[in-house]
Amino acid sequence: MRDGLTDLLVAFGVAYGVSVILFIAASLDGYIAGPDDDLSWMFTDADFGFSDFYSDVDTLIMGRGTYEVVRSYLDWPYPGKRVIVVSRNPDNEADTPLTEIYSDDLADLLTRLDGEGAKKIWLVGGGELVQSFLKRDLLDEITVSMHPILLGNGVSLFLGGFPRTMLMLKDMKSYEGGLVQLNYHVMPAEDDEADE
Amino acid sequence: MRDGLTDLLVAFGVAYGVSVILFIAASLDGYIAGPDDDLSWMFTDADFGFSDFYSDVDTLIMGRGTYEVVRSYLDWPYPGKRVIVVSRNPDNEADTPLTEIYSDDLADLLTRLDGEGAKKIWLVGGGELVQSFLKRDLLDEITVSMHPILLGNGVSLFLGGFPRTMLMLKDMKSYEGGLVQLNYHVMPAEDDEADE
Repeated sequence: MRDGLTDLLVAFGVAYGVSVILFIAASLDGYIAGPDDDLSWMFTDADFGFSDFYSDVDTLIMGRGTYEVVRSYLDWPYPGKRVIVVSRNPDNEADTPLTEIYSDDLADLLTRLDGEGAKKIWLVGGGELVQSFLKRDLLDEITVSMHPILLGNGVSLFLGGFPRTMLMLKDMKSYEGGLVQLNYHVMPAEDDEADE
Repeated sequence: MRDGLTDLLVAFGVAYGVSVILFIAASLDGYIAGPDDDLSWMFTDADFGFSDFYSDVDTLIMGRGTYEVVRSYLDWPYPGKRVIVVSRNPDNEADTPLTEIYSDDLADLLTRLDGEGAKKIWLVGGGELVQSFLKRDLLDEITVSMHPILLGNGVSLFLGGFPRTMLMLKDMKSYEGGLVQLNYHVMPAEDDEADE
């Protein structure tokens, strides 16, 4: 979704088109859930900036695994937000409000969402989905709420297998209890020519 | 090296006996080196608190892999410091100043070093060595200099395979260029009884 001047503008905070933002909690050793999807270690005593972040999100993109979990909740947690569920199988069905299954190219998806007026996309979840976005240089921002814990095992935030990616620290804050929130702008991949 | 009251004292910064401290640089995705031990991504334009940390370290503990790398340097980088090289093979030889090969139990090692007056031990390196110390609840402090980069591949700081470990954030600072330094006290493992 970015190139040249656009990157520069985005890097310096000038809004342009659609932004894809990973906003997620993790342990210091890089897990977003413990074994058996355990989330009991996460701080829930405060909001940690999530409401502010979420209030102007217009679109959510999540993997099918995450979708299967949240659709099973008694109440649909994302009323009023458009939700794109990325799935290899286009025959999967979405039975929740404003939800669409998507099986095609991710760059094409962002172009379409941009054209349809999306501004702020929350990438929900880590692992494979984050890997797919990083592989294609489609992620714009990362906010990690680093919890003061080592889980030693679980579901990894970053699976690797994507190119080296430079970040720009935009903000950092700590909360009572020792949660550290790091906010990075993802720098665009360098052109091959620029490396020579 | 710790229990009960000792833990409490250490947690609140009261010096007691020997402390084992991991002081290390990492990428946001948890690598301490890229593929082929690449360290070219690390910031070297400043000291990032290392000199202050190192000045009152009396003892270094490192794995044999790390030792093989640093002993190959033209100048031995740790003059005046005692160095313990942890190796599965006691027949390995140390030919650098104040260096000893150690193949036995790590808790016993710390008890011995404590008895010999060691106060501040720098655990050099990540991966297996850190895993061994975390498995045995022998690590007291972690300082991670988190670089604003995703490497996508390389040598992991945390290999997992240790029990869930609570941390206490002691300090956090950011440097020009976006390096974030997080300093944690490692909380002692809970007794089994305490869980019930």
